[in-house]
Amino acid sequence: MHLFYCPSLEVDLIELPEEEAHHATSVLRLKSGDRIGLLDGRGTRVEAEQAEMGKHRCAAIVLDRTSFPVERTARIHLAVAPTKQMERFEWFVEKAVEVGVDRITPLLTDRTERSKLRLDRLERVAIAAMKQSQRTWLPAVDALTTLGALIAQPPPPQRLFGWCEGRNEALMNVYAPDQDALVVIGPEGDLTSVEADQLRSAGFVAVSIGAARLRTETAACAATTWMSLAQQR
Amino acid sequence: MHLFYCPSLEVDLIELPEEEAHHATSVLRLKSGDRIGLLDGRGTRVEAEQAEMGKHRCAAIVLDRTSFPVERTARIHLAVAPTKQMERFEWFVEKAVEVGVDRITPLLTDRTERSKLRLDRLERVAIAAMKQSQRTWLPAVDALTTLGALIAQPPPPQRLFGWCEGRNEALMNVYAPDQDALVVIGPEGDLTSVEADQLRSAGFVAVSIGAARLRTETAACAATTWMSLAQQR
Repeated sequence: MHLFYCPSLEVDLIELPEEEAHHATSVLRLKSGDRIGLLDGRGTRVEAEQAEMGKHRCAAIVLDRTSFPVERTARIHLAVAPTKQMERFEWFVEKAVEVGVDRITPLLTDRTERSKLRLDRLERVAIAAMKQSQRTWLPAVDALTTLGALIAQPPPPQRLFGWCEGRNEALMNVYAPDQDALVVIGPEGDLTSVEADQLRSAGFVAVSIGAARLRTETAACAATTWMSLAQQR
Repeated sequence: MHLFYCPSLEVDLIELPEEEAHHATSVLRLKSGDRIGLLDGRGTRVEAEQAEMGKHRCAAIVLDRTSFPVERTARIHLAVAPTKQMERFEWFVEKAVEVGVDRITPLLTDRTERSKLRLDRLERVAIAAMKQSQRTWLPAVDALTTLGALIAQPPPPQRLFGWCEGRNEALMNVYAPDQDALVVIGPEGDLTSVEADQLRSAGFVAVSIGAARLRTETAACAATTWMSLAQQR
C-alpha cells in the first residue's frame, strides 16, 4: 500500500499536503476509492480511502487509525557537520532514518564547509526514508546549529564525539544502549582541538569509531548503525 | 601525502597504472621530485618520489617500503544482490570498504534487477575508498555470481542471510567476531522462499538486521558495519 506523509491526522477527512497530493495524483495516478496509508511521523498510521481528487488536491477518508509506540528504548541524537558535497550528507540522513535515529543536528563548526543548508531537502529525504523503512516516527532534523548552541542545550546522559587524535576508547565499548545519547561527528579535517576541549569540558567523551579513517558521513552512519542495532539485540 | 594504487610494487622504479598516472599528472599536477604514497592493495605501502613524468606516463622511485598485516582477525564476506540503481550498490561498496570488508560478491538471484555489472566501476570505487580510508588491503570485488555458484564455494564457518519473513535471530546476537563470515543480502523484493531453502540446506542461518525494513544496500552496509566494528571492540 502506498504511504503518504501527513503531519496532522486528527480529523476523518484528510487533505494531503500539496507535494504528497501531487505524488498521489500525477505520479502514482491513484484513483478515488484506492486504499492508501498515511503517516503523521508521530506514531500514528492511518488506513484511508481516496476521496475527491483534483489536479493538485487529494483528500482521503480515514478508515482505520493505529498508534505505534516510540521505536527505541533510548534516544539516538547525531550532531554532524554537513559535508562539502551535500548529497553525502543527504545520504547520511537517508541511511540514519532507515537504520534508526531520533534526531539529526547539522553542525556548524570552525571547519564546516557550508554556512547554508537546504533544510527542506533534508526533511524530504527523511520523510522518504521513513516511508521506505515503514517507520511511523519521523526523526527531527534541526536547522544548522553552532557547536556552542548544541552544548548549551539540555544534555542527555551520554555525550560522545568522534575523535581521531590520540588513543580513544571505541564507541562500541563506551555506548550504553539503555541511555539517551548524543554523538558529535566533526567535518572533513575534523574538529579543532579548541572545539574538542569545548566538548570535553561539557562532559563529552572522545571515542573512536573503528581504526580506519572514515569520511564524515561514513563515521556518522557507522555510529548510528552501531547504536541502533545495539538497542535491538 | 597523495596515495596511488599500483598492483605491483616489487621493483624499485615503479610505473603508475595509466589512470593513476593521469590523476597524478593532469589532475593533481604533481611535479618530478614530489613525494607520493603507493598501495598495492595487498598490505604493502611504499613511499616514493616522482621521477620522469610524461603526459600520460608517471614513474616513481621507491624510497621506503612497509608491509602491513591483514586488517581483521576474521574475514568479512558480503554477497549482495545489486540494486536497480547502480549508484546505490556503488555506494554500498564505498562504505563497506571504508568501514571494513574483505570480499564483496555481487549476487545474481531470481529477483536481481540486472544481469550485467560494470565490474571496473566497482573496482574503481573500492580503490578510491581504500585510499580514502588509508587502508593497505584492497577488498576483492567478484564478478556477478549466481547463488548456486556462491553456495558451491568452500564455505566459511559462519554463513548467514538477511531474511524478513517470520521471526529470526538478530545478526547482532548470532555473529561471532572471531570467525570468518559470509552474509547474503537479497535484492529489492527479497530472496524467494526457494532461495531461502537453498541457503538453509547449505547451512546458512536466517537473521534479521534490526526491526525496520531496510533497502538492500542499507541492510548490506548495516551488516558490514556491525561485523567490522564488533571485531574492533
